[in-house]
Amino acid sequence: MAETSETVSQLGERGTLARILPLLPTATSVIVPPGDDSAVSMVDGARVVTTCDVMIEGPDFRLDWSTPHDLGVKAMASNLADVAAMGAVPTGVIVAVACPPSTEVSQLEGLARGISDGLAQMAPGCGVLGGDLSVAPVLTISVTVIGELSDRSPVLRSGARPGDLVAVAGQLGMSERGLRLLLGAGNDPAAIRALRETSPEVKHHLAPIAPIFQGIVAAKAGATAMMDISDGLVLDATRMAEASTVTINLSAELADDEPALMGGEDHGLLACFPPESTLPEGFRAVGRVEEATPNAPVLVGGEAPPVSRGGWDPYRDSSSVKTRVSP
Amino acid sequence: MAETSETVSQLGERGTLARILPLLPTATSVIVPPGDDSAVSMVDGARVVTTCDVMIEGPDFRLDWSTPHDLGVKAMASNLADVAAMGAVPTGVIVAVACPPSTEVSQLEGLARGISDGLAQMAPGCGVLGGDLSVAPVLTISVTVIGELSDRSPVLRSGARPGDLVAVAGQLGMSERGLRLLLGAGNDPAAIRALRETSPEVKHHLAPIAPIFQGIVAAKAGATAMMDISDGLVLDATRMAEASTVTINLSAELADDEPALMGGEDHGLLACFPPESTLPEGFRAVGRVEEATPNAPVLVGGEAPPVSRGGWDPYRDSSSVKTRVSP
Repeated sequence: MAETSETVSQLGERGTLARILPLLPTATSVIVPPGDDSAVSMVDGARVVTTCDVMIEGPDFRLDWSTPHDLGVKAMASNLADVAAMGAVPTGVIVAVACPPSTEVSQLEGLARGISDGLAQMAPGCGVLGGDLSVAPVLTISVTVIGELSDRSPVLRSGARPGDLVAVAGQLGMSERGLRLLLGAGNDPAAIRALRETSPEVKHHLAPIAPIFQGIVAAKAGATAMMDISDGLVLDATRMAEASTVTINLSAELADDEPALMGGEDHGLLACFPPESTLPEGFRAVGRVEEATPNAPVLVGGEAPPVSRGGWDPYRDSSSVKTRVSP
Repeated sequence: MAETSETVSQLGERGTLARILPLLPTATSVIVPPGDDSAVSMVDGARVVTTCDVMIEGPDFRLDWSTPHDLGVKAMASNLADVAAMGAVPTGVIVAVACPPSTEVSQLEGLARGISDGLAQMAPGCGVLGGDLSVAPVLTISVTVIGELSDRSPVLRSGARPGDLVAVAGQLGMSERGLRLLLGAGNDPAAIRALRETSPEVKHHLAPIAPIFQGIVAAKAGATAMMDISDGLVLDATRMAEASTVTINLSAELADDEPALMGGEDHGLLACFPPESTLPEGFRAVGRVEEATPNAPVLVGGEAPPVSRGGWDPYRDSSSVKTRVSP
C-alpha cells in the first residue's frame, strides 16, 4: 500500500490539502473556518483571528539575497497581511525558528531585529507572545499571528457582489520586478549587493512593507470582500471571484503589466467596495465586479488574462525553484 | 564581525535565547509574557492563552520509530499540555507542516489522523484553525495552540509557596523507559515493531496522552503553581522553584527512580496546592515546597538529587542526538 501512495510533489499542494483537510477536526469555537486569509474563532466570548505562514530556506528564500533582517521583516509582512485582510488588528505573533547548529547567533539577532522593525513599522503595539527555537537542516521560520476585530465583522473573500469596485492597496508587481533584477544578477555577490543598496524593487522583494493599517481602514469603509495579494493579482482575484461566485473584470490598463498581474509576494490588499463608494485612502481602483461569466472568474479589460499561470505551488514547483534558488 | 560571531551550538539554546529575546518587542496586549508554559494576552477584552512547539525529524523524532500517527498525537500532547499547565482549555490549534517533496501523501494523512485522534482524546471540541504546508529537507511540524481561561486566573510557575503540597498528574519516567527500550532495539525493524506492539512505555514515549483535563481541575482546586513536565521532574521542578523563589523537596521514594527524576517527554503536570488541600482527582503527592535553600532549588528526600543533568538542549546536544538518531 505504501508503495502505491502518491507523493506530495505528484499531488501538489492543493491536491495534498484536499486529502488532509477532511481528516482534521473542526473546532467548536470556529466562526470563520480555515480557507480564508485567516480563521476566526471564539475565545472566552471574543473573536480571535489567527493565521500561520512558514518560510524555509530554499523554496522561500536564499541567504545570498536576503539578510536575516530582511527575513524578519518579510515574515511579519506576509503574516500580518493575512490578519489585516480580515479587517483585524494584529495583537501578537508567535515565532518558531529552527536552524543548523552552525548558525551564527548574530544571524538570529538580525532576524529578531527584522521582526522587531517589521512590527514597529506595520503593526505598532503588536509584539512577540512566544515561540520556539530548534535545530533543522535549513533556516525555518514559522509564524502565527493573532488579531482582534473589535466591533467589526471579519471581511471575507466571499462577499464581492456584482457592481462592486475592485481596489488595491500597496504594491502591484514590484516584488516580481525585484525578483527579476536579482535573477539577472546571477550569483555575483557584488551585483546582488549593488541591487540591494539601490533598487527599491529589490528592497520590496526582500523586505516588503505591507499596508496593514489599510486593512482596518477598508473594513471601516465597508469593504465587501478582502484578501492579501501574495500569489499575484490574477490568481488571488480568481480565488476571490470563485469564493464570491462573481467575475472580477480588471482594468484594461493592467493588460500589459505582467508583473502586476502575475507577480507574487507583494503582500498588498485586494478589496471590493460597494458600487458608489469613495475609496478609502491608500486604495486605488483596479476593476469592477460583474455577474459570474462561466469559466472566466477574472478578466482583464473584458478579455481573458494575457498570461495564465497556476500560481506558486511549493511541491510541484520545487524542482524549478531549486533551479531558481541554487542555479 | 561575522567571523567572530558565536554559533548557536556554542551558546546553546538558553544562551542564544538570552541574546535574542531582548531584541523582540513586547505586545501591549500581554498579561503573562513569554517564559511560562504559555503566554496570555488580551484580544478584544478576552484573555487568550498561546503556546508553540516545533518537532523536527532528527532532534525530535526518528521515522523508523514513530509513525506519522504517533507524531500527530505527540505534537498535540506536548502543545496541549502547555495550555493545560496554565489552567486553560485548549480551543484551537494551528499546524504548519513542511516535508520533502517525495513524502507520500499517506504519511501526511497519518499525521492528520494522529492530530485528530490526539485532540479527540485530550481536548474534545478543540480543532484545527489553520496552518501551512511547505517543503523542507526533513519532516517539520510546528504547532501553535490557543486556549481560554473562562473566569480563572492563569496558574503560573511562580506561585509556589513554602508549605504547599507538590503533586503530579500523568506519567513520570515512563517515556524515558520507553526510549531506553527503543535504544536497546538498535536498528532492528522487527525488534522495534515488537516493542511498538507490546510495550506501554514505548507507546507512551512515541504517542503520549497528556492529562490535559487535569490542568483545569487543578486550577479549579486552587493550584498555586503549575507547569508541564517535558524535560524531567528535577529540571522542571527546578524551573518552578526558581520562578517561585522556593525549594521543592521531592519525596525520598523517588530517589532511586532515575527515569522519573530525569526522564523527559512525559508531558504530565507538576502542580502545587495549598498545604491543607485535598489533592484533586488525577494528582498524587510527590513532595513539599520549602523555604528557599541557597543553591538547592530541588531536593529529593532532603538531599541533592542523585543525578544532575542539564536537561535537553537542542543545539548543544545535537551532536549526541545525531549519534543517537542516526547511529
